[in-house]
Parts: sequence; structure tokens; C-alpha cells
Amino acid sequence: MFSIRTDLAIEARELYKDGHAGEIPGVSIDEKEEDGIKTVKVSILNDEGAKAMGKPIGDYITIEAPDLRYRDIELEDKVAQKLADVVKEISNVNVNIKTLVIGLGNWNVTPDALGPKVIENIVVTRHLKELAPLQFGDNICSVSAMAPGVLGITGIETAEIVKSIVDKIKPDLVITIDALASRRIERLATTIQISNTGISPGSGIGNKRSAINMESLGVPVIAIGVPTVVDAATIANDAIDYLESALIKNTSSNSPLYNVLKNMDKEDKYALIKEVLTPEENLIVTPKEIDLLIKNISSILSRGINLALQPNLTVDEMNQLVH
Amino acid sequence: MFSIRTDLAIEARELYKDGHAGEIPGVSIDEKEEDGIKTVKVSILNDEGAKAMGKPIGDYITIEAPDLRYRDIELEDKVAQKLADVVKEISNVNVNIKTLVIGLGNWNVTPDALGPKVIENIVVTRHLKELAPLQFGDNICSVSAMAPGVLGITGIETAEIVKSIVDKIKPDLVITIDALASRRIERLATTIQISNTGISPGSGIGNKRSAINMESLGVPVIAIGVPTVVDAATIANDAIDYLESALIKNTSSNSPLYNVLKNMDKEDKYALIKEVLTPEENLIVTPKEIDLLIKNISSILSRGINLALQPNLTVDEMNQLVH
Amino acid sequence: MFSIRTDLAIEARELYKDGHAGEIPGVSIDEKEEDGIKTVKVSILNDEGAKAMGKPIGDYITIEAPDLRYRDIELEDKVAQKLADVVKEISNVNVNIKTLVIGLGNWNVTPDALGPKVIENIVVTRHLKELAPLQFGDNICSVSAMAPGVLGITGIETAEIVKSIVDKIKPDLVITIDALASRRIERLATTIQISNTGISPGSGIGNKRSAINMESLGVPVIAIGVPTVVDAATIANDAIDYLESALIKNTSSNSPLYNVLKNMDKEDKYALIKEVLTPEENLIVTPKEIDLLIKNISSILSRGINLALQPNLTVDEMNQLVH
Amino acid sequence: MFSIRTDLAIEARELYKDGHAGEIPGVSIDEKEEDGIKTVKVSILNDEGAKAMGKPIGDYITIEAPDLRYRDIELEDKVAQKLADVVKEISNVNVNIKTLVIGLGNWNVTPDALGPKVIENIVVTRHLKELAPLQFGDNICSVSAMAPGVLGITGIETAEIVKSIVDKIKPDLVITIDALASRRIERLATTIQISNTGISPGSGIGNKRSAINMESLGVPVIAIGVPTVVDAATIANDAIDYLESALIKNTSSNSPLYNVLKNMDKEDKYALIKEVLTPEENLIVTPKEIDLLIKNISSILSRGINLALQPNLTVDEMNQLVH
Repeated sequence: MFSIRTDLAIEARELYKDGHAGEIPGVSIDEKEEDGIKTVKVSILNDEGAKAMGKPIGDYITIEAPDLRYRDIELEDKVAQKLADVVKEISNVNVNIKTLVIGLGNWNVTPDALGPKVIENIVVTRHLKELAPLQFGDNICSVSAMAPGVLGITGIETAEIVKSIVDKIKPDLVITIDALASRRIERLATTIQISNTGISPGSGIGNKRSAINMESLGVPVIAIGVPTVVDAATIANDAIDYLESALIKNTSSNSPLYNVLKNMDKEDKYALIKEVLTPEENLIVTPKEIDLLIKNISSILSRGINLALQPNLTVDEMNQLVH
Repeated sequence: MFSIRTDLAIEARELYKDGHAGEIPGVSIDEKEEDGIKTVKVSILNDEGAKAMGKPIGDYITIEAPDLRYRDIELEDKVAQKLADVVKEISNVNVNIKTLVIGLGNWNVTPDALGPKVIENIVVTRHLKELAPLQFGDNICSVSAMAPGVLGITGIETAEIVKSIVDKIKPDLVITIDALASRRIERLATTIQISNTGISPGSGIGNKRSAINMESLGVPVIAIGVPTVVDAATIANDAIDYLESALIKNTSSNSPLYNVLKNMDKEDKYALIKEVLTPEENLIVTPKEIDLLIKNISSILSRGINLALQPNLTVDEMNQLVH
Repeated sequence: MFSIRTDLAIEARELYKDGHAGEIPGVSIDEKEEDGIKTVKVSILNDEGAKAMGKPIGDYITIEAPDLRYRDIELEDKVAQKLADVVKEISNVNVNIKTLVIGLGNWNVTPDALGPKVIENIVVTRHLKELAPLQFGDNICSVSAMAPGVLGITGIETAEIVKSIVDKIKPDLVITIDALASRRIERLATTIQISNTGISPGSGIGNKRSAINMESLGVPVIAIGVPTVVDAATIANDAIDYLESALIKNTSSNSPLYNVLKNMDKEDKYALIKEVLTPEENLIVTPKEIDLLIKNISSILSRGINLALQPNLTVDEMNQLVH
Repeated sequence: MFSIRTDLAIEARELYKDGHAGEIPGVSIDEKEEDGIKTVKVSILNDEGAKAMGKPIGDYITIEAPDLRYRDIELEDKVAQKLADVVKEISNVNVNIKTLVIGLGNWNVTPDALGPKVIENIVVTRHLKELAPLQFGDNICSVSAMAPGVLGITGIETAEIVKSIVDKIKPDLVITIDALASRRIERLATTIQISNTGISPGSGIGNKRSAINMESLGVPVIAIGVPTVVDAATIANDAIDYLESALIKNTSSNSPLYNVLKNMDKEDKYALIKEVLTPEENLIVTPKEIDLLIKNISSILSRGINLALQPNLTVDEMNQLVH
């Protein structure tokens, strides 16, 4: 059967609540809003919550700032700072730990290039600390970074590559950056999800079938993601849903139509969507300006991560260290 | 009201035929298929045909090769040669005329970059003929090329730029290359439309509001276009249409449902689509691999145009002249 | 004979002073230094000065900030502001005039891509003022922008393209952006030359053979250039010069060696350089990091030009208008 | 002291022969020329040869085709086939072994991007063989590929990354692709060196300080390199050498000049070069068209490697497998 594709915990919750009354059992929600930035913390507390949400136990914090769509330097700074705050809150980052930042996704596919683009502007210091410990010693955090590519280009599962690097350089923390799928167009490039669960099979828009998480790597994994596409099937599905509910509104529940609609839904919805989207494929919906939007949000992500990992450096010092 | 967005004459015809019996008055059709390449010539013969199709009088030849999706060097060569044949058939290209090739669209927006990408590999010779007429004299056709950018980046209507260059260098023929919108996903990057009508207001996926045609420029204009996006509204519309027809099939025409559906259509379809696609925007549907698909088709286009314009040059001679 | 290739007036002056005592007749110099930014105004006052300098009569203002090599946000802001000040001083920019900004050079050649890169971030407003005069009316300056490409790619002289656009849209001021050749490595991507003479035949690193200036266009032309390459022949020449002067220092002027050296110079220097650089070609010397350096300086240029042309807009308003 | 920078064995040999009579002890040479392609095999046979050449014991085969500078499809095909033949001759490639191809260098630095660019077009099959062994079984060779980035961007020694991947996926053969430095401009992008020694500290134009070879990885390493830059110091040095020898030719060996020149050389040459190239930096000399030249040669490399590793696939089958 067709299922709505989303990598965002807040959307998994919205979908659940569409069909159920009350909050999800085993899930707690904490919402704040400040300066045009909405922060929602979805905590999956136990197996019941995990099953209802289709996601592992852990915290999923979403930063939403719809106005990022319009360039606003002050807002961008605030979102970067907010991201830094969340990363510091959700992990044990401090100047003594070693962090490895992984940019997931494919350079050559615009909406999937977010991870590699962010990596480009991470302040990388591991080699400096090793080569010149006296000069760079206690002031900076050891950070390394990598864009491992995707299975179709390397022939190697991304999780295998990450695992082998982690085994070699033994970081205390891994941060992954990834492009996500959302079910809401307005979230594209304006929403950041940070979770302490790592990456689980099936998520992301690329082909990442193995987990990148505490269990597989042996170190905590913070996953940072930004939706850059909506699945075209979601759009088709939404259109059908809207029509159904419009029809139902105009129909008394004891009319034959009502039952036709209810029954159609179960049997034929997926067939309809398939027919709309033939040839069945990896079809995505994006704003035409996606190249520009990704450029902006990736700059915010790298700034936020740099702020979190290098609290003792000024912006100029960071810029000088970035290639 | 919502209208399906397509730049292809064959799709305008399909849309017409959905609602009408018989062929369109004032339009003639000629179809051929050979070697996995289907060629359809839609000729709009008079004002009646132009009105029904929403396009100016003239010939629109479509080359369809769905297997271009899978790399096949032999098929690519055949399509390039077919494009060359159609350009020669539809224009008065010969070694004595001067041709200006215009790559419409925006470098920085992946699905709109087709035109500029094609221009990169056009064999440009105008300056060689002017600087060294004896060496390059009678054997090569004078070709110049340009990517004028888009209104949002230049502040100047593209048609104004083209007109001013044409007035200055006085070509005998203008060929435009443009990314189009299709209503069928399977046509993306696998279909080429060649027409002798030029570009009219409103077509293309960019912002080209003024005409680039015989009337505005004073020389014949061959417009070559390839669909690279489907409008997201088309997907939503298709989903609604499919659901409607499925419902109608299950409903007798004298049931109240039948009338509800018929009435809904007229009033609410556009509202539904708007709701699905909020925030209302320039939303496009593409295959995830669009970057790669555009790279391939743009290479086919430049080869086909070079073959049409430079019949006396070998492939090696063309390569040496291309930057 | 070999001649040092430079597009900078301050270097033409240095070369003259190497062989002559005193200042150049017909040339006045004004130097300032502030905040790590050196500003030199070379004014060529008459034909005598023009002949000695090999450049047209006019003002050439150079902004030098060697520390731009190391990322320093504050310095970058100051240089952008300084550029804006110089543009305002040297031209009659005001909110009522129409400006056309031209990015010269070739997208596909890294050190020649400066002009097109700058254009990308110019705040373009001409179409907004025309389409919505009430909304955008008196507050913003009408700006259009264009990257016309280079002769080898278009087959059309760049000057012809610019002339045809100028004739069409009739700006009051043209600003050109161009990559230059310097004779000093330390000036690459750290020096900006602004002149009110436009572009004259032979300058620049591309193929621009016709003038883009007041005389050819009928409107004032401000030329902004940044050196991005040193000609490899300059490096070879410098090596030979250094060796000669080292030898001469060790030789009394009545020794036979002294005369050998003096005579060698005249006859064989060019032959030596040719031999070093076989196969004779368009060889350039750049820092390995040239891609990054050009990215930084092009961002400074676009900010400076935007500040000069749009004094009534905030940075956020500019960002929202830039694509 | 200054030393000429070259990564090519044939140039190390030329340099040796400049100062010595006869062939290098411990080195054997085998030269062939066919169809405009010169192939030179330099075999370093023992420690004496290794010391004289400054390179490890092993075979270094150079394919030189100066006419690659002018696009010539037939020559490109021949060079790709020649590369395939050399790889097959120098390694034990066959359909049963697993190969890992490593693209060394930096995406963001044009002349250093050769390795990553080649990787893009390698036919990668390891995952296909693992996921669908029956379909892809015996006909194709298991190939994986990776561009590990450079130390300045990852903070991790490239050799460490490669070692950790090799330990994980256990290939039978590693092939590295790298941009090299040459001392001859005419070799840029027209010469390919293939060696069975892997990569040793200090070679390449990037920062690769640890070895990637049989000893460090435990599997054979074929290193394929193409010169894309000449060190600017080499140009300065050549200029000085040419002047010296011109002066010496004009001087009798008992004149005082002769001795001055001989003495100067030892003391001051390096100081002179430093003075020419201040600020001392990573200065490179390239043809202006380097972007285009690298695009062409990288396409030849990936074709040659694909031919060597996948002898049972047709060109169309390869294209379909390449992303």
C-alpha cells in the first residue's frame, strides 16, 4: 500500500493525529516559538511510541522558520545560533571531544547535495591539533569531516564507509547531515530536524539501507536533516484526499456515494497514484528555486555546526580555517 | 481557472481530443515511427486551428524516443541525426546563410539550464569567417551563439536582448533552444519539439513575456525545445481527474453523486489544487536524476544542430572548433 | 619584442619608473592608506602621459588590501564600502540614472569567470521599476546586468553585443567588470582597479579587441577590474631580470661581462622566454587556491557595486532582490 | 635547496641525464611509438636506481600523446585503449578480482579535481554483484570507487581513509587516480603515467603525506596520474638556467664571468627564485584552457579504466551502468 513519505518526526505525528484522537501514547511534545522560529521537541519515550511513529526511541527537535524563504540575514543568524544551541543541548559536545561530521548524499543531484555542500564549510581541525598541538591545543575542538558519496556511485554501502572511518579515527561523536523528504512544501529548505537517534534504514532521499547510529558505530550519532523534496506521490495523494473530503462534506453518510468513497480509498488509491505518476519513478516535487534555497540553508547549517563545535573561535578565525 | 500547462503541440492536441470527438479543425497530423523514434508533425493550418490549439499557425514536429532514458549511444546518434534532418527540412539552412543560436533559460536553475548548456557546444564560426575568410570561406556556415539570461537576472526582457543582437549582426536565421513544460512525465528529457513559429508569449518555463519570432525579429525563427519539468499542479490535477473518472465509472448517471462530481469539477477543482500546493509557488515535478538527463539531452541537441548547420565538417573538425 | 603584460595603471607606472628618474610627465599620483587599505589614484592628464603609460587619459584608482588573502569579514566590508565610495566619486551615480553592469569574461575558465560571477549577485531592478513604478519608484536605482560571453564562444565581438544592448535600453552609465593580468603575484585577488576610461583594445585576459568606452557607446563607462593571473612570461622575464641584476652587481662596469649582459638583454631575452615557455601558449600563473580567491573577491565586488548603486536599500532588501 | 618538482619518472630520468653521461644505473628503459602515441617504460630495478630516481622500485609506464591537445576522437579512443592495455599488463586484473578505484585530489581546485572527476564515470558494480549475483554474476568485475577528499577538507590523512576502506571491503587491487606536477608544459593533460608502485609520500600536487601502496594497504596498488600543473618555481628555474647557458656559451671558460656564473649558481639560485615568486606560495602554471583539458583527459581515463576492468561489457552497457 501507498504510504506518505516523510522523514520528519513532526509530520509522522501529524499523520498519526489525522487518524486518531488525542496525543500519541509513548510520545511527548514540547513546543516553543520565539522570534519567528518555532521549535518542537518530539520525544519518543518507549516502544509503543516508536511503533506508532515508525521511528526509533529518542529526541527529534525541529526548528521551523518559514521566513527563511525570503533572505533575512538576522533570521539566518538566529537560526544558525538556535541550531548550535540544540546540538549542544542534545549532545555532549565540548572542547575535549573529537567529532566527525558526515555529509550524506550525492553531489551531482541538486536536492540531494545538501550534505556534501555543508561539509565544504565545516571548520576542520583534527589535522591541525595533531600536527601542531601546542598552537591549536586546548582552544579548539578536534573536528573531521567527510562526504562518503552514495551507493550508486561508490558501490559501497554508505554505512560501511562511515563505520570503517569511525573504527579508524575513533571520534567521540558523529554528526550526519542529510537531505530529507517532507510531506509539506512549505517546509522545504526552511525546517531543520536534529535528532539523537542517528540514521535508520529507509530514511533520507538517497539509498542508505544500513543504519548509522549508536548501535552500529558505537558512538553517539546526531542526525541533522533538512527537507529538500516532497515525493510526487505525496502531492498526488494529497490531491485525492482533498477531493475525497470535499466530496464527503457534500454527502450524507447514508448515501451510496459515502460508501463508494470509503471503499475506493482502501482499494484503489494506490493504483490511482501509480497511474498518475507513470512511468513510476523517483519523482520529486521542488520549488523551481531549489538550487538557491539549498545554497542558503546549507550555509546556515555549516555556521550552526561550527558555532556548536568551536565555541572558542571568532567568526573570522573560523573563516580563515575553512577552505 | 486552472489550465494544464504544456508547451508541446502534441499535448495541446491530446488535451483537445480528451474533450472532443474527431481531429481538430484546421490542424493536420502526420505520424511516423522508425528505429524506436516516433516523429509527429502537427501543422496548424489556419486561425481556427490556432485558436483550438492555443498556439500560432505553423509546423510543430516532435521527436519522441522514450529509450533515451537509458543510455544508448546508437539511439542518441540517431536522434541527433533526426533533429538535424528536421531542422534542415523546416528551415532554409544552407552554407551561405548566417545563423544565430540563442540558448534561453537560466544557468543557475537546473531544469531551466538546457538552453545555455546547449550553446556551450555549438560550433561557433562567425568570427572565423570574418577574420579569416579565405581559410574558412565557403566550407562552413556562419554561426554565432548566445545565452542572454533571464529577466530576473538581467532586468531586461530576453526578447529585447535578442532583438538588439539580431538588429546588430543581421543573421538570416535564428534558432532558439529552450526548456519546456510537459504534462507527461515520460516525455521529460526524451522528447524534442522543433517548430517554425518561434517563441510566443507565455511559453517556456522561464519568464519570457515578449515574442521571439519572425514578426518581432524580421527573420525566420526555429524554436527547439525539450520538456524538463511537469508543473506540480498538473500532477495534482491528474490525480483529481483519475479519481473522478474512477468514481464516475462506479456511479450511474442518474445518481445524485454523478451530479455532485460534475458540479464540483467546475467550482472547486482549482481551489483543491491550490490547497494541495500551498504555499502557491513555482512548484515543479522532475525525476531525481534530472541533472544527468539534461546533460545527455543537451549533448544530443548540440550535436544535432551542429550537424544541420555544418554539413561539410567532420565530427573531429567540429570538436576542434568547440570550446 | 617581449613586453611585460599588465592591465594595472599602478604597474605601468612602476615599469616606467624602473627605467626613468622622476615622475612620469603628464601623470599625477595621489596615495592614501587607511585601515590596511591602500588607495592610489593615477591620473593621466594629457597625451604625453597617455603615451608614456600606454593607457588612455583618465583616472585609475587602485584599492590594495593584501590581507584579503586571509579571510577577514571586517576588512571585506571595508573594501566593499571603499569600492562603493570610489564608484560614487568617479561617476555621477544617483538614484535617477539607469545603470547597465556588464560582466566580461568566460564562465568556463576559472580565472576569467570573475565578471560573470559578480553579475550573479548584482541587485537588478530595471524590470521592477518598469513593471511596478509606484512600488519601486523613487527609492531604487534602475540597474540591469549582463554577461555577454567571449568571442570564442559567441562568435560575436563582446563590444558589438554591449553596443547593441546599450543602443536598445539606453542606460546613463555602464559599469564593466573584468579579470585582469598583473605583474605581481601578491596583487592577485587582493587589488581592485576602478577607472573612468572604460575598456580599451588589448586589455584584459580575454579576447576583447574592440573598445567599450564613452567614445564607442556614447555613455560614461566605469571599468572595474581585479587581477586574477600573472602571465607566465612575466615570471620567466622576472627570473632573468633578477639574475642579470645579481650578476651586474658582482661585475664592474668596465669588465667585458658587463657588456655581454647589456647586449644579451636586447637581443636574446625574448628568445629565452620563448624557449622556457614552449609550446608557446596562453600560460598563466595563479595560486593553487584561485577558485576560492575569486569567489571571495567577486562577492566583495558585487557588494560594493550594490552599495554604490542602491544607497537607499538595506542589506536585507538587497539580498531579497538578488537571485 | 630548490629542486625541480616532477612526479613523472621519465622527467626524473631526464633530470638525471642532464647532469650525467650514460643511462642511470639500476634503471632500464623501453620506448615504443605508434599512431602518434609514445610509450616509455621506465623500470627501476634496484635500490641504486631508486636512489638515483628518487622513486621506489617498480615500473612506470608513460603514455604521451601531445595531439590530445587538439580534439581528435580517434586518438582519444586509441589512448583510452592503450591505457586499458597497460593496466592489464601491469596488474593482474581479471573478472574474478575485486577492484577499488580511488580518485585523489580536491573537487574545488580545478587542476586538482582530476581524480574525483574520473571517479564520476567509473562503472561501479560491487553493489550489483552483491545484491543480484545471479543477474550480474560472472560477467562483470566487482568495482567500487571513492573520492576521499584531501587533508585540508577532511582533517584526516587520505591514506588513513583509503586504508580503512580497504580493510573493510578487502579489494584485490587498488587503482588510484591523481593530478601530478610536471616540469614540461607540453605534457599537461597529454601524458598519462601508470605505475605499479602506488603513491609515495610527497608526490602529487595535494597534501598526501602517507603512502598508499602494497606495503601500507596489503594489496597491489596501480597509480595512474596525469600532469595538470607545472610548479611556477620550475618556470623561474628554467628561465635562469637558459640565461646561464646562453651566457656561458658566450664566455670562454677562463674568463672571470665563467666563474661568477658557476659560483652564483650554487649560492643564489634558490634565493633568486624565491624573490621572483614572492609572496612564496603554492603557485602553479597552467594553460588558460586547463578546465577544458582536464575535462577531456578525465573522460579518457575513465574510459580506459572501464575497458580494463570490464572486458565483457559493451560501451552501451557501461554507459547504462554509469551515473
